[in-house]
Amino acid sequence: MDRATVESLRGGNSRAVARAISAVERGGVEAREVIAALFRYTGRAHVIGVTGAPGTGKSTLVNEIAKLYRRRGHRLGIVAVDPTSPFTGGAILGDRLRMQDLAGDDGVFIRSMATRGNLGGLASATSDTIKVLDAAGFAIVLVETVGAGQSEVDIAKNAHTTLVVDAPGLGDDIQAIKAGILEIADILIVNKADHDDANSTVAALEMNLNLKPKAENDWRPPVLKTIAIQGEGIADAVEWIGKHRAYLESNHLLESRERARLRAELELVAQRELMTRLVRGVNGSKIEALVEKMAAREMDVYQAVEKLIGDTHS
Amino acid sequence: MDRATVESLRGGNSRAVARAISAVERGGVEAREVIAALFRYTGRAHVIGVTGAPGTGKSTLVNEIAKLYRRRGHRLGIVAVDPTSPFTGGAILGDRLRMQDLAGDDGVFIRSMATRGNLGGLASATSDTIKVLDAAGFAIVLVETVGAGQSEVDIAKNAHTTLVVDAPGLGDDIQAIKAGILEIADILIVNKADHDDANSTVAALEMNLNLKPKAENDWRPPVLKTIAIQGEGIADAVEWIGKHRAYLESNHLLESRERARLRAELELVAQRELMTRLVRGVNGSKIEALVEKMAAREMDVYQAVEKLIGDTHS
Repeated sequence: MDRATVESLRGGNSRAVARAISAVERGGVEAREVIAALFRYTGRAHVIGVTGAPGTGKSTLVNEIAKLYRRRGHRLGIVAVDPTSPFTGGAILGDRLRMQDLAGDDGVFIRSMATRGNLGGLASATSDTIKVLDAAGFAIVLVETVGAGQSEVDIAKNAHTTLVVDAPGLGDDIQAIKAGILEIADILIVNKADHDDANSTVAALEMNLNLKPKAENDWRPPVLKTIAIQGEGIADAVEWIGKHRAYLESNHLLESRERARLRAELELVAQRELMTRLVRGVNGSKIEALVEKMAAREMDVYQAVEKLIGDTHS
Repeated sequence: MDRATVESLRGGNSRAVARAISAVERGGVEAREVIAALFRYTGRAHVIGVTGAPGTGKSTLVNEIAKLYRRRGHRLGIVAVDPTSPFTGGAILGDRLRMQDLAGDDGVFIRSMATRGNLGGLASATSDTIKVLDAAGFAIVLVETVGAGQSEVDIAKNAHTTLVVDAPGLGDDIQAIKAGILEIADILIVNKADHDDANSTVAALEMNLNLKPKAENDWRPPVLKTIAIQGEGIADAVEWIGKHRAYLESNHLLESRERARLRAELELVAQRELMTRLVRGVNGSKIEALVEKMAAREMDVYQAVEKLIGDTHS
C-alpha cells in the first residue's frame, strides 16, 4: 500500500476503504500488506458487537443505532458478518436492503461478509476489516452477525461492547441458542417490545442474570426494551453503550480486553499459517497414501497425523 | 482400552459405550487410546445427518425416524450436536425431553454434545463419537445439529446421507440460513406440512433445485413433506434414506465420500496438533511479549506470527 493510498484512506475516502477491505478479504500477502501499512493507526474506534438469534430484528436495530449516531455527527462503519452462508454469497441481501436509508451517506461505510467455507478465514477477515475502518477514522464500528454459535464468541472477542438481542415469541430452538450467547452480553435488548410476551422475556433474562454470581464491581448487563422498527428505545440503548464504554475505561478494562483480543488473534493466525506451511511442505501423494491407510483401517487419524507432522520435521 | 472393554463395547454394552464417548469428548491421550482400539471395527454404520434452521422441528423428526427404525428392529445411535452453546452445557435439554419415549430402550443410544468454546474440538469429538457407535454395532447413526453455519458443513462431511429440514412460515433470517445449507442436502424435508404455506415452501425449494445444473447421473434431492409431531411422512423419509444409500453404493460413492471425510478429518486433527505443539514449544512469556508489541502497535499480527513460528523452528 503506497503512502498516498494510506493517506487517502485515513482521510476517510470510501473507495480507498473499500479497496483495502477487499484486499483483506482475499487474505494472504495482500491482507498482510494492508495491515502492515494501517495497523499503527488503529486502536481508536469503539467496536460494538450486535448479535442474537434469527428473527430478533437485530438488523433493524443496528440500522436505527447507526442512524442515531449519524444524527449526532459520528462517522461509523457497519460490518455485517454472515457465517451461516458457507457456500453462497448474497444471502444477507435482505438485511442490506433495510439499510438503504443509510446508503449514499459518506459518514457511513457498510460492508457485508460471508464465509466461503472457512470460519477461521472469516474471523481473520472480520478482524482485519475492523482495523481498516478503525484506521480510516470511523469512531464507531458496529459488527453484526446473522446466525448463532461460535461466531458470537468470535465477535465478543473483537468487540469492546457486545449487545445481545432477544425477542418475545421465538421457539424452543431459539431459546437454546439464547442460553449460549447470554454470557457474552454487556447489554441485553428485548426487541419487538410491543409484543404481548415482552415482559415475560425481560423477566426471564433478569432471572438468568440473577443466577450468575457477581463480584461487587462487576458490570451488570441492563435489560432494555426496544421497538427498533419504530425507533423506540434506541436513544436509551446508545446511552447504555456509552455507559459501558465509560465503565471499561474507568476500570482499565479496555487494555485487558484489547490484550485478550490480540492474543486470540495471534493464535488464530498462527494456526492457519502452520497449516498452510504443512500442506505446502508435504506432497499431495503423501496425504493420499495416509488417507488410503485410514480407509483400509490400518491407521487411525491420530496415527496418520503423527506420521504427517513427523515427516515435515525430518 | 483393555480387550474386555473393547469386547463389551462391541457387544453393545451401553455403559462401555458411554464411557468410551466420555473419553473421546475429553480428547487428548484418552481419545487417542479409544480410537486406536476401536477404529478397525468401524466403517459399517450408515451415518445420517439431520440439520436445518431453528424452529423447523428437526428434533421431533429425528425422534420419529428413530422410532420407525426401532420398530423395524435396527439398533441406532443418536448424536445431538449443539454448536450454539459455547459456554453452557444442557442447552438442549428441551430437545432431549422430547426423546424420552426412546429412553430405556437398549437398542438406542442417545448422546448430546455441546462446544465448550472450541468448534474444532466439537468436530473431532463428534467424529470420534460416531466411530464409537459404529464400532459398537449400531447400524444407523443419526447426527442432529441445532444451529446453523459451519456446523452443518462439518456434519455433511461426516454423514453418508444428509437431511435438510425446512418449515413454512419462518422469518427472513431463517431464509438466509437456508440458502447456505441447501447445497449440502441429499434429501429435503418440509416439516410442519399442515401449515398453510407448506406448498409454497415446497415450490420454493423445487425452484432452487432447478437452478442448479446437474449431470445426468447426479442425485436429485427429493422434497418431502412431513408432519413429524403426528408421525406423518416418516415412512416416506426413511424409504428415501434407503434409496440414497443404494444410489451411493451402486455408483461407488460411499468410498469416495469416505475418503473425502477422512482427508478432512486428517487436516482438522493435524491443525489442532500443530497448534498444541506450537504452544507447548514456546514459553508463555514469549507470547506475552509479542502481545505487548501488538498492543503498542509496534508489530501487527502477521509479523508476530512470523516471529512466533520462526522461533519454534530455530
